[in-house]
Amino acid sequence: MPTVNDNNYDSFVEPNHDLHQLVSAELFSPTVDETLWFFKELLGMTEVRREGESVYLRAFEDWYSYSLKVTYRQSCGTGRTVWRTSAPAALDRRVDAIERYGIKGSWDDGDFAQGPTYSFTDTAGHHHSLLWDLDYYRPPESQKSDLLSRPQKRPTRGIPVRRLDHVNHLVDDVTTNREFLRDTLGFRLRENIVDRNGREGAAWMSVSPLVHEIANLGDQSGQSANGNGRLHHLAFWYGYPQHLDDLADLCVENGVEIEAGPGKHGVSQAKFLYVFEPGGNRIELFGDAGYLIFDPNWKPVTWTEENVDTAVIWYGSPLPTEYFLYGTPNNGPTNYRTPNDLMAISRPR
Amino acid sequence: MPTVNDNNYDSFVEPNHDLHQLVSAELFSPTVDETLWFFKELLGMTEVRREGESVYLRAFEDWYSYSLKVTYRQSCGTGRTVWRTSAPAALDRRVDAIERYGIKGSWDDGDFAQGPTYSFTDTAGHHHSLLWDLDYYRPPESQKSDLLSRPQKRPTRGIPVRRLDHVNHLVDDVTTNREFLRDTLGFRLRENIVDRNGREGAAWMSVSPLVHEIANLGDQSGQSANGNGRLHHLAFWYGYPQHLDDLADLCVENGVEIEAGPGKHGVSQAKFLYVFEPGGNRIELFGDAGYLIFDPNWKPVTWTEENVDTAVIWYGSPLPTEYFLYGTPNNGPTNYRTPNDLMAISRPR
Amino acid sequence: MPTVNDNNYDSFVEPNHDLHQLVSAELFSPTVDETLWFFKELLGMTEVRREGESVYLRAFEDWYSYSLKVTYRQSCGTGRTVWRTSAPAALDRRVDAIERYGIKGSWDDGDFAQGPTYSFTDTAGHHHSLLWDLDYYRPPESQKSDLLSRPQKRPTRGIPVRRLDHVNHLVDDVTTNREFLRDTLGFRLRENIVDRNGREGAAWMSVSPLVHEIANLGDQSGQSANGNGRLHHLAFWYGYPQHLDDLADLCVENGVEIEAGPGKHGVSQAKFLYVFEPGGNRIELFGDAGYLIFDPNWKPVTWTEENVDTAVIWYGSPLPTEYFLYGTPNNGPTNYRTPNDLMAISRPR
Amino acid sequence: MPTVNDNNYDSFVEPNHDLHQLVSAELFSPTVDETLWFFKELLGMTEVRREGESVYLRAFEDWYSYSLKVTYRQSCGTGRTVWRTSAPAALDRRVDAIERYGIKGSWDDGDFAQGPTYSFTDTAGHHHSLLWDLDYYRPPESQKSDLLSRPQKRPTRGIPVRRLDHVNHLVDDVTTNREFLRDTLGFRLRENIVDRNGREGAAWMSVSPLVHEIANLGDQSGQSANGNGRLHHLAFWYGYPQHLDDLADLCVENGVEIEAGPGKHGVSQAKFLYVFEPGGNRIELFGDAGYLIFDPNWKPVTWTEENVDTAVIWYGSPLPTEYFLYGTPNNGPTNYRTPNDLMAISRPR
Repeated sequence: MPTVNDNNYDSFVEPNHDLHQLVSAELFSPTVDETLWFFKELLGMTEVRREGESVYLRAFEDWYSYSLKVTYRQSCGTGRTVWRTSAPAALDRRVDAIERYGIKGSWDDGDFAQGPTYSFTDTAGHHHSLLWDLDYYRPPESQKSDLLSRPQKRPTRGIPVRRLDHVNHLVDDVTTNREFLRDTLGFRLRENIVDRNGREGAAWMSVSPLVHEIANLGDQSGQSANGNGRLHHLAFWYGYPQHLDDLADLCVENGVEIEAGPGKHGVSQAKFLYVFEPGGNRIELFGDAGYLIFDPNWKPVTWTEENVDTAVIWYGSPLPTEYFLYGTPNNGPTNYRTPNDLMAISRPR
Repeated sequence: MPTVNDNNYDSFVEPNHDLHQLVSAELFSPTVDETLWFFKELLGMTEVRREGESVYLRAFEDWYSYSLKVTYRQSCGTGRTVWRTSAPAALDRRVDAIERYGIKGSWDDGDFAQGPTYSFTDTAGHHHSLLWDLDYYRPPESQKSDLLSRPQKRPTRGIPVRRLDHVNHLVDDVTTNREFLRDTLGFRLRENIVDRNGREGAAWMSVSPLVHEIANLGDQSGQSANGNGRLHHLAFWYGYPQHLDDLADLCVENGVEIEAGPGKHGVSQAKFLYVFEPGGNRIELFGDAGYLIFDPNWKPVTWTEENVDTAVIWYGSPLPTEYFLYGTPNNGPTNYRTPNDLMAISRPR
Repeated sequence: MPTVNDNNYDSFVEPNHDLHQLVSAELFSPTVDETLWFFKELLGMTEVRREGESVYLRAFEDWYSYSLKVTYRQSCGTGRTVWRTSAPAALDRRVDAIERYGIKGSWDDGDFAQGPTYSFTDTAGHHHSLLWDLDYYRPPESQKSDLLSRPQKRPTRGIPVRRLDHVNHLVDDVTTNREFLRDTLGFRLRENIVDRNGREGAAWMSVSPLVHEIANLGDQSGQSANGNGRLHHLAFWYGYPQHLDDLADLCVENGVEIEAGPGKHGVSQAKFLYVFEPGGNRIELFGDAGYLIFDPNWKPVTWTEENVDTAVIWYGSPLPTEYFLYGTPNNGPTNYRTPNDLMAISRPR
Repeated sequence: MPTVNDNNYDSFVEPNHDLHQLVSAELFSPTVDETLWFFKELLGMTEVRREGESVYLRAFEDWYSYSLKVTYRQSCGTGRTVWRTSAPAALDRRVDAIERYGIKGSWDDGDFAQGPTYSFTDTAGHHHSLLWDLDYYRPPESQKSDLLSRPQKRPTRGIPVRRLDHVNHLVDDVTTNREFLRDTLGFRLRENIVDRNGREGAAWMSVSPLVHEIANLGDQSGQSANGNGRLHHLAFWYGYPQHLDDLADLCVENGVEIEAGPGKHGVSQAKFLYVFEPGGNRIELFGDAGYLIFDPNWKPVTWTEENVDTAVIWYGSPLPTEYFLYGTPNNGPTNYRTPNDLMAISRPR
């Protein structure tokens, strides 16, 4: 039987299913109190623990103890991104793959409410941790929801986010790091952008039907050349378009800068809103389900010079230039943004 | 490290990932023209082929040729439910598992635009087909979308559904069929309802982060006792709550009966709308993303007598009694509904 | 020129435009603290003053000081409904019309933040007040919005209502009171329901393009026969459908009973949600703009026995019986609901 | 009693209520077929008549025969804006006021389905017509809706607009024309923008609780200096935010240029989407209810240099420069846009 696609038995390689989900991410903030105000009062997150210079926060549909760790640092940026494997043995298999690649990580006892953890740095300088064992959230009696698929009552503060959705890392060499993530962790390429010289400018990757749990974006500012692990943004999920309008309204009322949106990306079909939390990190709010990829033989969507505009914006206004340059930390020669000067930077788009 | 959940290395069994997605379903209709009108004019689906007494239809985000086959029959109901495996070899493994279970299916060349197919009947009398190879949709030039992750332009007719979401089958013995689906196809139990006698009344199962691609609902009318494969409903996905209101509006304007909704199930957190297509089959429209299950060690949510009301309705009005009795075909002693008498049945709730 | 409607110059009588808007309403509650919790934590209203046994609350788009006064009483119910005229002289003209009708009210200095007020009782026993002069809201500096058409920042608590929308009063004789409201205050009939005996069962009236600032509903429980001014419901406005889903979610999480909805009335095309505030009064949340009446020669929409179902529900589930019987206070022989027994009543619908 | 606002009896002048509503507007198009495709296939409007070089279209919640007249002309732009008075005698009073102002219009028998009409040109060169008598829409039997407040079934094509909302006219001298509209037609100023030199740059005016049925925008291109009646945009109403996203999606799919949005104006709190119909005219879609003005003593909201950004955009991306320059017809020295060159102009924002 002739088929449209090359679905033939011979060429297809079964992917591994060892990496399963994004668990938590860490943000560095020079202004922890203001950062916490943002995540708690506007995004409705719940504080579950303070320890040293860190505060742990959860979204109300997080099944585990937390999905965000905010840590004081003089410069904003991101720390460990924590992933859960699909089985205990899968963790061992992935560690083995990483070490066979030539990257040497290390085991520790794990962060708060997380079990034995293997941590390593990817080819672009970003810190990742893998684990199987972790603590599920145990709500206090007053916070137990009658909706059994909801681990905590929906908060009455702010416009509460439901869960952590994805991380977007700035990198110097997209292809090298994407292939590392593919070969060691099993991330499949879902969409990417390739420039006129054939250079891969951005890649969106996932281990689930989501279009991405992680994206790698080529750093056009040059600041990622030394592998310092710059964050482009961290994204939390709403699922409902109205909530982006609701949050945007609260942001303007409360002096939180909106960088762009609500709008619609071509890539991932995301209804997006980008804001800067007071510590200086870019946060995306994801306002719908986007599309889900169920095809086991998915051919990556590749955007090129001729349709990159559509990739970036399906409808809505163009993104400001800084979207493509600003990341955290931001200590390069082009100092696009500091926590104390959020507004000044974004005006001359 | 002590953990809340029993995530220990010893007890966890890695699931297989061989079944990957729901591809298409077949509806029988005694009034094919009216059924097509409903799917094309109100749900915005596109006709891709007519062959014998069947018509093939697609939603605009279906990657393969079609997701719905409408076939003339004197009685409404459902035919084959078609599933794609995650790899060519996975197909062989699943066929082997089915036959080891003691059910003997058969291979054929496949339906229109589908490759070699193994078909069998589950323990409750429902017809399933497994395949790997199939044709991707090739839109005519005028229907190509600039949104590369969209296989066809969004239609301008009706409130267009995006893709087939799940099937809900009436069965006589939920547990037996659920275990069959688990042991042979790898479906994981996500949520279920257990009555006061410990009998499983309903089960929602998936092979992806969706809460279900298939549900089995205990047939309270007794009509499934002889394993005739009654359909409770077929569900198509919107992802946006407003579209349920938009479609409900069009249904009332055009004489299509709404059984219930828009409302919110506790189970699967679905924003739902149930309508009867003119052929008599119940169709669900799914108006948001619900919640997605990323936990690899998910403990099924079990609803019992004391909270079954919450399972059925999180908020919104109670479902009418017929929701729990009517299925297609409906030729038992309690003739709840006929295509010509849709309205009379639902009134005395 | 022949016209469809009888828009001829001779028959048209210009309405007066003297009554202009609904300003505030008063609720009685036997459990003021719980009632305040509901309005402040879930509906996001702001407390502006406590005085004696009353608390004054405002929605964030109220231009005047407040729109809701909650007063302790042993029985729930409603007090004064306050209206503003379109001009100072218009107040005198309306007082004159009321007294010419044969109803004698009285002047006082006005409630908190309201100027000289004329109060009277309509033919059904409901208390109304008319005024021109009142205080505009002066937000504290921290609550000033940069959105100049918004008198106060949008709150971050609950799902904040924007303004008071309408009152719905139970009456014994709809026609008599409707004609009184028309002849004295200038309310125009927008929609009504007439039963098989030609008796008017309900009337929706307004002085603006809104379909109603006031509705009169025939009390089928018989409790309004002695003119005790029973409240059917008070309605607050959101304008966005999603907010009804958001509030419904919070209500279920927090034990606030939802009577019906979200759903869509035929009358006024309202997207509605009905809940009971803890004091026992029914509160409606209005989730869209409905439709606006701009036709100066509007012919009232009359629903009759044959289409009253469509009037009540355009789509969504039928309303429970109690919707047509329960009002506050509720001290008649049919004791449908008490503040301490909210849940028991609504179950056997 | 001291009051915040100067609501005293002495200073308040009662406005007249003689002008009541916007009835219809006329668009000129050099490409009528494409323009009709846009309004019928994407905006779901219904054609009710063709006569000479004009086609009459209606939105499904228009009570009168039509709200849009599309007429062939070599250059795009706008013709008559038709208003209905609140009473027959009110028409005479307004004609008298216009003529007392020194502008001399003329009576004719009226356009299709409209009665005796008085037409005149405002101080900025825009053509207006006043009438009382007109034909109500009589739907064919198949188009009658069971929703009695809906004059026609909701269409199944496109994302159907509900009614005409407002017109926005470019003028050379905002204040002069605003005062003319106030003194003759009774338009009340709701919001305006005043520049650093005290010059009024824009004014939004209404005769109803809507923030505007008409706006006058100072023409920064200089093309309105000779009083040629340039159109900035015509706006149709949805009331639901999702519909802006739905229409934007269809516009991108079908090559209709989106100028800006969906976004949120500060002025009028409008959720907006601006697109260019194929004839070259700018069309706004209004995606929510905005806010309604019920205060009879409304103090106009005045935006100045320091907050004009907030007036234009409350949240969302800045408008492109062309938004402030392009109008129709566009035959000045700066030829911003031609029907055949829609895309080229808007890129270098």
